[in-house]
Amino acid sequence: MSKHSNISASVIRRLPRYYRFLGELADSGVSKISSRELAERMSLTASQIRQDLNCFGGFGQQGYGYHVAELRAEIGKILGVDRSKKAILIGAGHLGTALAMHINFQKSGCKLIGIFDSNKQIERQELAGLKITDIALLEQFCAADKPDIAVLCTPKAVTKDIVQRLIGLNVRSFWNFSHYDINVDHEDIIVENVHLGDSLMTLSYGVNNK
Amino acid sequence: MSKHSNISASVIRRLPRYYRFLGELADSGVSKISSRELAERMSLTASQIRQDLNCFGGFGQQGYGYHVAELRAEIGKILGVDRSKKAILIGAGHLGTALAMHINFQKSGCKLIGIFDSNKQIERQELAGLKITDIALLEQFCAADKPDIAVLCTPKAVTKDIVQRLIGLNVRSFWNFSHYDINVDHEDIIVENVHLGDSLMTLSYGVNNK
Repeated sequence: MSKHSNISASVIRRLPRYYRFLGELADSGVSKISSRELAERMSLTASQIRQDLNCFGGFGQQGYGYHVAELRAEIGKILGVDRSKKAILIGAGHLGTALAMHINFQKSGCKLIGIFDSNKQIERQELAGLKITDIALLEQFCAADKPDIAVLCTPKAVTKDIVQRLIGLNVRSFWNFSHYDINVDHEDIIVENVHLGDSLMTLSYGVNNK
Repeated sequence: MSKHSNISASVIRRLPRYYRFLGELADSGVSKISSRELAERMSLTASQIRQDLNCFGGFGQQGYGYHVAELRAEIGKILGVDRSKKAILIGAGHLGTALAMHINFQKSGCKLIGIFDSNKQIERQELAGLKITDIALLEQFCAADKPDIAVLCTPKAVTKDIVQRLIGLNVRSFWNFSHYDINVDHEDIIVENVHLGDSLMTLSYGVNNK
């Protein structure tokens, strides 16, 4: 059950949703569930669920179904939520502040250890229990604390340079809320883009073409 | 060029990115571009770009390339950014506030016309030029102002009921930041989900399996 190297990106992308649903089931006292029942709750087909979970060796037993807590723990391990990664947040404007306050980093296997901004006026203010640090001190901080992930809430114009600096500091994973497409310049970097404007435009398309 | 009913979801999902890149090209004074050049800038292949754009009738001319402003305008029309839709935001906590302040709704063909919250303490405070309204007045507001889209920044526990109310008020499109999966209960509703926690978990997987 530990090898999962050839899993398609689309299966990976569905795993957090399984993880969420199984967590809710566990919280509401459900200890086992059939693929049919799980499929109904998640608006998937039972065969889709069996196919997805079989990618990881298959957790179900014919005629019994899935053991909710066990399956959730396995998916959690695959997602790596049990292994803490250090994250820093760059840009403490409205969006950065909201993410620092709103996101449960720990639940996703991350720990927010630093927040940076170029605005001297908010420097040393506290956010999510951390002091906001001058971005000029990024090199010093990364050398000492070795973050794994940078959360980018910076304007597009400055993001390219910041990414270049961070890659030089050995940060190789980005949760990118900026409009700068990191992979255009850096192919070998792990990027999870959240382009909120693109998402709203996709909704706009749906509304216009319904 | 006006019919685009059988376009796959994955092509639709790429359109906002084309729209962004073409906007940047236009802003930097580029008036025409070959599919090869555009492909390089976007980390796609030229044939992928030609295939995508051919879905809409094809805008390029052999040996000339694409007319940047024209192509951008056409994609904008397809995305419906030229037709204004009325949006309301439910939940003016950290995330709702960040979206109200940070998102350029107009750029995506939307106009934010109301913000609602159940917290009496923030009622009548201003956010993005709008007074925060008591959620109890939702029915009255929707009857008068007929919003098309609701942006949901509410805790999961209350979102199901709010969605039920909004559907009853003829709101049929949701930009959903809550953890409630709307389509599980309402199949025929247009939903664009932004599950930030899922996105961070997907990044966590990438970091663990690099």
